[in-house]
Amino acid sequence: MDAISVIRAKRDRGELTDPQIDWVIDAYTRGEVADEQMSALAMAILLNGMTPREISRWTDAMIRSGERMDFTALGVPTADKHSTGGVGDKITLPLAPLVAACGAAVPQLSGRGLGHTGGTLDKLESIPGWRALLSNEEMLDVLRGCGAVICAAGDGLAPADKKLYALRDVTGTVEAIPLIASSIMSKKIAEGTGALVLDVKVGSGAFMKNLDDARELARTMVGLGRSAGVATVALLTDMSTPLGLTAGNALEVRESVEVLAGGGPADVVELTLALAREMLTAAGVRGKDPADALRDGSAMDHWRRMITAQGGDPDAPLPVARERHVVPAPATGVLTALDAYAVGVTAWRLGAGRARKEDPVQAGAGVELHAKPGDHVTAGQPLLTLHTDTPERLPYALEALTGAVTVAPAGTAFTPAPIVLDRIG
Amino acid sequence: MDAISVIRAKRDRGELTDPQIDWVIDAYTRGEVADEQMSALAMAILLNGMTPREISRWTDAMIRSGERMDFTALGVPTADKHSTGGVGDKITLPLAPLVAACGAAVPQLSGRGLGHTGGTLDKLESIPGWRALLSNEEMLDVLRGCGAVICAAGDGLAPADKKLYALRDVTGTVEAIPLIASSIMSKKIAEGTGALVLDVKVGSGAFMKNLDDARELARTMVGLGRSAGVATVALLTDMSTPLGLTAGNALEVRESVEVLAGGGPADVVELTLALAREMLTAAGVRGKDPADALRDGSAMDHWRRMITAQGGDPDAPLPVARERHVVPAPATGVLTALDAYAVGVTAWRLGAGRARKEDPVQAGAGVELHAKPGDHVTAGQPLLTLHTDTPERLPYALEALTGAVTVAPAGTAFTPAPIVLDRIG
Repeated sequence: MDAISVIRAKRDRGELTDPQIDWVIDAYTRGEVADEQMSALAMAILLNGMTPREISRWTDAMIRSGERMDFTALGVPTADKHSTGGVGDKITLPLAPLVAACGAAVPQLSGRGLGHTGGTLDKLESIPGWRALLSNEEMLDVLRGCGAVICAAGDGLAPADKKLYALRDVTGTVEAIPLIASSIMSKKIAEGTGALVLDVKVGSGAFMKNLDDARELARTMVGLGRSAGVATVALLTDMSTPLGLTAGNALEVRESVEVLAGGGPADVVELTLALAREMLTAAGVRGKDPADALRDGSAMDHWRRMITAQGGDPDAPLPVARERHVVPAPATGVLTALDAYAVGVTAWRLGAGRARKEDPVQAGAGVELHAKPGDHVTAGQPLLTLHTDTPERLPYALEALTGAVTVAPAGTAFTPAPIVLDRIG
Repeated sequence: MDAISVIRAKRDRGELTDPQIDWVIDAYTRGEVADEQMSALAMAILLNGMTPREISRWTDAMIRSGERMDFTALGVPTADKHSTGGVGDKITLPLAPLVAACGAAVPQLSGRGLGHTGGTLDKLESIPGWRALLSNEEMLDVLRGCGAVICAAGDGLAPADKKLYALRDVTGTVEAIPLIASSIMSKKIAEGTGALVLDVKVGSGAFMKNLDDARELARTMVGLGRSAGVATVALLTDMSTPLGLTAGNALEVRESVEVLAGGGPADVVELTLALAREMLTAAGVRGKDPADALRDGSAMDHWRRMITAQGGDPDAPLPVARERHVVPAPATGVLTALDAYAVGVTAWRLGAGRARKEDPVQAGAGVELHAKPGDHVTAGQPLLTLHTDTPERLPYALEALTGAVTVAPAGTAFTPAPIVLDRIG
């Protein structure tokens, strides 16, 4: 077996055999297959595709590259959620304690933001004292004690995927459905959750710009989860405009706490509840309405315990950016578009995100929205507030908003897209 | 400008701009674009192709990555030949001194063998004392004094191609016509020859297995040469069976000397003369018949001077392998096939070639042919003699000959393929 023959097979539109896939993943993890060989193979996969059998074996080989966790000792059904990434997507924060409050354990291994999309760990790190890095034992302790844990995936989980993900990021080979699906699902299956709900984002602020691609990705992932014995469903949800009214780390924590307190923006509440219901159903937990857990304070209680267990102070004031800048509405009428991608890039340039994995993020930076598509606005009213510690980057951030806002004449009929566009499962 | 955007442009079937091509070649040469990025780009080029404008600019950027030589000070027309590589292809050895004897200067920068094809420098190095590595000044001195020089290309010539060639070799991205054409032509144009004849091999022992691919490659290269001001033509020549009666380093030198002495196998003489005539015409040298220079000893005289000038002893006995093994004809009848690729692999496994660039080669190893397609053979008569210093590898070498020989019943009508299949220019 050698790398060149595997690359050639895929390059020439062949189907890789099980031994070829097993060998190339293992040899790449061990460093015997070089980065320049794997990137050539990734490009061939991106351009020539993979059959369902190949994707399944590839995922399996990545799982076998590391350890598998097992939560059966907990004696409670487990459920996890994965979002493909969007702008203002803070759903994991209220969702994990909410589902825990309803009786399923939520082992939520999360990531950091890269590019214009935010990362759950970056958001939670704006809470003073909170720690993302837990040992496997600490993770199990928090999960047992609080019903939910949100932390970084350990190095032992799917190391092949870690290496390949970093490689794809710098070689223009991210946008391949077989590679995206196997990357996500190898981590989630290795993590050992019993049920999994996928939030596949569609729209300008998402990875998948159209419904067809999102559906194909969702179907591929649902198939992979089910054949690995994980009860998996997917919701396709709108990402044409940011979720909620904030994009940025501390800003999104604040909004998440509002949701847990029974308030918060309607779209965030609606999606949180929809995903919670799917998670509970997939985990086999019946007779609980998550809306009750928001009303009766039990979700908030789980949140406070979870944050505290990871060293965070749920009552500490959140960091605030040094400077604010208000962007006014350009006209009077109906706001018909507030582009998710543009807002994501703006928040990123303000300091909320990172250009490279090593970069730090600003806890307080981000964008606050004062109106959502469908709302009536008046010319000159505050439409957005930009928050940053580095005001010298404001012009660069504002540039990203060019063409992001559309206001139609007052009285124009306009119905915003629903949050949940489709369900696969 | 960044590597990912260039990779994405080609991945998404776009046409790379001149600044993108210039930047990516320069940045790769400087190490700013990483190997894993360039290999992903090479795979995208292989699968999505390049327009003639892109190929031309890519070639030009590789030329500009290093120095350009200039032979105008010689005051003699210059002509060079490049073969895309085959089995038993020793043509450069008699051709360079032959063309020099007819009045054109031949600055022949050559390479080493890799895989089943032999390399001109490896062959000449079987001559005791002969040196492949010359400084630019030494090269010019030999060329001025002997009319021809065969040596290794200096490190200063198209360094981008050197780096990219080594990368393609290990990433399954060799077989891309735009990359093959630009690799060959960047070196030949940078070398500064005034005329260039391309010997594009077609058949099992060649890189291009069919005439259509070979024609496309030839047309692309001829176009590149002409737009750079080099008088370029291409011959498409048969490589379904080895050239001549030997494949191996010292074995091929011996056969080349036979040709220079006025003898040698008919196919080698025919192709040598055909290429010599094309080189002389392209260089603008008229009124000389290279067949005369073989007959009157002037080609041999130029050979002896050239070998001597590079430290070699043209009269020293050539190395002989320690062991010989005879392969008999399997049946009586007409030999209709003796597969070039199989013979090449056999010679390689006997020790004539190298698996990796660092490996040494055996000077004496190789395959001697006692019949050619079209000849009548008798069951049991010697068909091949295998030469090697490592007889323990004989079974491995013999394995490569499985199915390589076809003998049809005596009297079967069979006409071997002509040597020259087509001419582009």
